[in-house]
This record gives sequence, C-alpha cells and structure tokens, in this order.
Amino acid sequence: MSLPRTGPVRSEAARLAILEATAALFAERGYEHLTIEGVAARAGVGKQTIYRWWRSKGALVAECLLEGLLFDDRLALPDTGDVRADMQAWLTTVFAVIDAEPGLVLSLLAAAAEHPEVGARLRDSLTGSASISGRLDAAIGSTTALRPGVATEQLAEALIGAVVLRALSRSSSDADDAARLVDAILGDAAD
Amino acid sequence: MSLPRTGPVRSEAARLAILEATAALFAERGYEHLTIEGVAARAGVGKQTIYRWWRSKGALVAECLLEGLLFDDRLALPDTGDVRADMQAWLTTVFAVIDAEPGLVLSLLAAAAEHPEVGARLRDSLTGSASISGRLDAAIGSTTALRPGVATEQLAEALIGAVVLRALSRSSSDADDAARLVDAILGDAAD
Repeated sequence: MSLPRTGPVRSEAARLAILEATAALFAERGYEHLTIEGVAARAGVGKQTIYRWWRSKGALVAECLLEGLLFDDRLALPDTGDVRADMQAWLTTVFAVIDAEPGLVLSLLAAAAEHPEVGARLRDSLTGSASISGRLDAAIGSTTALRPGVATEQLAEALIGAVVLRALSRSSSDADDAARLVDAILGDAAD
Repeated sequence: MSLPRTGPVRSEAARLAILEATAALFAERGYEHLTIEGVAARAGVGKQTIYRWWRSKGALVAECLLEGLLFDDRLALPDTGDVRADMQAWLTTVFAVIDAEPGLVLSLLAAAAEHPEVGARLRDSLTGSASISGRLDAAIGSTTALRPGVATEQLAEALIGAVVLRALSRSSSDADDAARLVDAILGDAAD
C-alpha cells in the first residue's frame, strides 16, 4: 500500500484527534471504562490507526497524562512561593488521583515498564522548568529557601519515586502522608 | 478432578522446586533467556502447574527476587556501621544489576503493576529489620547517627522509589549517582 502524499499531515491530525478523544472519554468515564474502541469511534479513526502508534490503552493514556491532557490543571504544581507547602499540596492531589484511579497510575507504570518510549517520556517530564526539579531549583535562594548546592534532580526523583512506590503497593495515602514524605525528603534541605 | 489428600504438601514441594529451578536458571542464563518451559522442565512439573501460581515469567521471577533467591547475598545491605556508606554501596550494586539485567527489573515492575500480590510483596520487603527502613531505624543514635525522629520509612520509600524511577527511565547510573542520591535523600538526616 502506498500512502497518500498528504500522509504525514493527515497522520498528525489523526494523532491529535486520538489524544483529544482519549482525554474527553477519560474525563467522562474514568480510566477503567475507557476503551480503544470508544476512542477510535470518538476520534473518527480505525482501531488499527490507534494501535499503529500506541501498543496498549495504558500507553495511550500515559501519553495523554504526560502531555498534560488529563485532569486539566489539577495536577499542575501550585506556586504560592512556599515550595514545601506547594509540594505537599501537589502530593496530596496526586495521592487522591491514585486512590480514585488506581488503574490509571498502574497502567502508566506497566506501560513505562514495557515500552522504552513511555519510560523516556516519564523521565523527560521530571526535568524542565515546569517540573518538580525545576521548581526546587527556583526555590533555591527564595524566602523558604533550599540550601544552595542541594541536588534538586535527586530530590525530585525521590519524591516521584515514592509516589510510584505507593501506587505499586496499593497503599492509600492522605495529606498527612504527603506532609511526612515532603518533610522526610526535603528535610533540612530547606533552611 | 479430586486432589489427592497429600495435595497441599505436594503442592508446596512443587512450589519450592519451581522457585529453586527459576533461581538456578536465572543464575545460569540471566533473565532474558529464562523461560517458563525451561523452569517447568528443570522443576519436573508441567507448565500449567507454574501458571496456577504465577501469571507470567515476570511474576515468578519477582517472587524469587523478593524471596532473596536471586543474586545470593549480592543484594543484601552491607553493614559496616556507616549507614550512609552502606546505602551508597547497596545502591551502586542495585544500579549495576539494573544496567546488567534491565529486563529483570522492568518485568518486576510490570508484574507489580499488574498483580496486587506482587505489589504487596514489594511493599512488605520495604519494612522489617533486614529492610532499608529497618537499617535506617537501627542507625538512629549510632556513630553515624540519624537524627531521632527522622521518618525512616519515608526515607526508605524515597530511596527505593528513586531506584524504580531509574529503572523505568532506562537511565544508566553509577557509584557517583548512588552517592548523590544518598546524600540528597539522607541530607542532614545524618548528623
């Protein structure tokens, strides 16, 4: 089969339609009731078009999550100027999402374990100015300062890693857990 | 089919034979070349007997890993009296294992994401006296003391979580990375 000349352009449009359909269905139904068939119907593409780019529902939803298409701004880091309070608030939200949608986070992890490209996306999402480590970097020298020289990338890894482990162990977590975790990890890194 | 009266006893023997065969084949061939067929032949059981207890090769190997049947004592925490040095040495070994056998760790994570019982085993392995948090607890008040009141369970979660994240992101790590991670997470928790 030869592709039409407009193939790449049309493909990108289809790809975006699929991601948007996934995000819309996720908002309406939640992760458990989201199906590849439903996404295909909503996006106006065939199932095979979806499987051309994503090997599983988990991989597809993982991309949406990492693109920031799910949860609107709910999972964005708050920025009140107090990095410790912001991290606690963010972790509390993340824990609530894990409790409400355990299948979502576990599928993301399974997809990251199975597909290197999802793992790479997960890693990329940890760096950059909008990321946890970016925010920790920005907090060095601020009012609720982190000590200069603090390894922010490693602290970010520790925070996200602890979240991943909570999800894997299916343990329920609340705002107190979030506070304990932030206190333990940031420790005396904050003056 | 009715089970013989000695069923449970014979089942436990078969279960142990399967775990031992898995460990032996893992040592000989590594994770990638280990197969359920090979384990069944070595243990003298049928493949269906294995699938009765474990749903995948990943789940089977995960159980061996969490039972301490792989790597002999190589993955045990060293105990030199210096908890920070011990953690660094242990993390360096773990990073080397991840580099040498990426499929092993990723399969463990995929199995933990898919099967709650594997996730629970992973969580259980984090507590107890032989665990990271147990060792951090023991280090409170020792020569290279951790501050009393330090949340050792959360610190252990952070350390293991960071390891999990490294595995998922397929990033190579060395002794320097291990040292940076331990320094960042234990921070000033050690006096």
